[in-house]
Amino acid sequence: MFHIEREIAQQPEVVACLLKEQTHMAQKIAAAIRTFNPVFVCIAARGTSDNAGRYAQYLMGIEARLPVMLATPSVHTLYQAPPDLSRALVIGISQSGRSEDIFQVISDARQQGALTLSITNNPESRIAQAAEYHLDLMAGEEISIAATKTYTAQLTAVAMLVAALMDKPVLQEALATLPEAVRQTLSLSEVIAERTERYRYMNHFVTLGRGYNYCTAFEISLKVKELCYIVSEQYSEADFRHGPIAIVHAGFPVMVVAPSGAPLNGLLDLLEKLHERKAECLVISNDEQALQFAQTPLRLPAQPEWLTPVTAVIPGQLFAMNLALLKGHQVDRPEGLTKVTNTI
Amino acid sequence: MFHIEREIAQQPEVVACLLKEQTHMAQKIAAAIRTFNPVFVCIAARGTSDNAGRYAQYLMGIEARLPVMLATPSVHTLYQAPPDLSRALVIGISQSGRSEDIFQVISDARQQGALTLSITNNPESRIAQAAEYHLDLMAGEEISIAATKTYTAQLTAVAMLVAALMDKPVLQEALATLPEAVRQTLSLSEVIAERTERYRYMNHFVTLGRGYNYCTAFEISLKVKELCYIVSEQYSEADFRHGPIAIVHAGFPVMVVAPSGAPLNGLLDLLEKLHERKAECLVISNDEQALQFAQTPLRLPAQPEWLTPVTAVIPGQLFAMNLALLKGHQVDRPEGLTKVTNTI
Repeated sequence: MFHIEREIAQQPEVVACLLKEQTHMAQKIAAAIRTFNPVFVCIAARGTSDNAGRYAQYLMGIEARLPVMLATPSVHTLYQAPPDLSRALVIGISQSGRSEDIFQVISDARQQGALTLSITNNPESRIAQAAEYHLDLMAGEEISIAATKTYTAQLTAVAMLVAALMDKPVLQEALATLPEAVRQTLSLSEVIAERTERYRYMNHFVTLGRGYNYCTAFEISLKVKELCYIVSEQYSEADFRHGPIAIVHAGFPVMVVAPSGAPLNGLLDLLEKLHERKAECLVISNDEQALQFAQTPLRLPAQPEWLTPVTAVIPGQLFAMNLALLKGHQVDRPEGLTKVTNTI
Repeated sequence: MFHIEREIAQQPEVVACLLKEQTHMAQKIAAAIRTFNPVFVCIAARGTSDNAGRYAQYLMGIEARLPVMLATPSVHTLYQAPPDLSRALVIGISQSGRSEDIFQVISDARQQGALTLSITNNPESRIAQAAEYHLDLMAGEEISIAATKTYTAQLTAVAMLVAALMDKPVLQEALATLPEAVRQTLSLSEVIAERTERYRYMNHFVTLGRGYNYCTAFEISLKVKELCYIVSEQYSEADFRHGPIAIVHAGFPVMVVAPSGAPLNGLLDLLEKLHERKAECLVISNDEQALQFAQTPLRLPAQPEWLTPVTAVIPGQLFAMNLALLKGHQVDRPEGLTKVTNTI
């Protein structure tokens, strides 16, 4: 068994453990946020962790009405001109807790008087220590270079934080169903392993999502790139119509993340357009109409939309892993990558 | 002559006209910004205009120390849950001024008491009228569907605004040299027309930039997609190292935007890595060392780094147009695209 296979399979336990062990910490941090009363949120992250930041943009925006920016770390490091973050909640998200540029953003922000929080899988790390508050993902060591369980843990951590902040029982109750939803989604493993054969020779890929699952489009695309060495792009449904749709021709493979929710109508309309262009559609959804457009339907359990990013990424992880295996690639140690990428 | 060819060639005049006619308006808006004293900036834009927003993230961050977020319009439209933008300067950037979702962000923000500004090429448009302040690009009608002159005009408008806000003579003086730098860059037209033959059969593409020219990587990639129907991706040099570099094999075409400035050292190091992987490098730069890594060097005039995005995109525009012509595509009306994309 490969590490990545095991780590994908561990996700229900990782999510359950996080909910069990860290809800109290999430509440403590939520109290600090209420006291600080930030004017906006700034999230500093790279790669997969940045996609967890994208999730926070929507969840914190929609539920807590907080404007969320994704930091531009080079403004802090290369240009040494940190913007004024003193009225912000600044969150560093990093699996290893060791990315130098994320450390710099957190340090600058804390010095300016911002409320700082780090979310990492290593409480001893520099980034964990640099922030006033730390939320430990407790996901266990992630050996595969491509992040899987730490990503869903990061999403869960963000969801826990917002649920604690809003203090609405309905959010807490929905959160409690998450481990089971993740477990159900993993039952797609076998069908995906078989179905991936069809894509053995694809040499480009596009993923689409919108709203809460914009992050899912990014993350699946990143997994396909990291593991399969395939050029893959991600778009919001809206941006895709603004130009890039021009690249879609007959047989062009497009993965559409379209669970029930606010963006579904727009995505259904786009699926119709993709169908007209004879695109090859892989659809991740819990909506029958959306799944009917798919050559490869990937069914999600029923869930409130805001939690679907935690499950919707899983078929994408499985697809990327299986495709890499089919192509004979090293799934645990993709060529040219390292687990900790220390950019400044 | 195609419209896009003419519109690319018009850029020195468009930039000169904007500087001549709208500096006063930029100063008026700068005064309003000083009075309002925003805690952060929120930019709402789609497609090419969003790339002008990316430029503003760096320029406003570095020069004015303002944190800049890119809006998530669907939070306003699909989810109808606008975040609290009352302490923000909210800028809508749109060529046509007609994108419904950008209109919604501006309207919500104005209602909340934010300082609102729109930057469009049509003062009669809905977005122009919705904001308290409007900066007219005065670029003349843009007929080609792929935006070129309105993009460099948007960048120039952002630069004018920041120069007015900071009130530093050195910034104003540098701005005055912009039309001539744009003119000089256009002298690459012939060499690019010839050189593009080499890329006639490329079927994927990656563009890289960092800092000020992160936006340039995005915009060139978008032009290549829109005009050539090629899968093309853009990355910051740092994010690229965090995974996607795995896709680069011998002969893989990568366009690196690497003018002199803070990100240059990192980009030189990455160029060396790309060279080891035997990638095919197209380098847009005014630095000799960077140009030496290139199979296709594209030389920029000497300029302060903060203004290089206005020139650095031009070789990319010319490359995308020439490649589309070589492939026999409709350069003015790419298949499946419309000039105004009205997303909600």
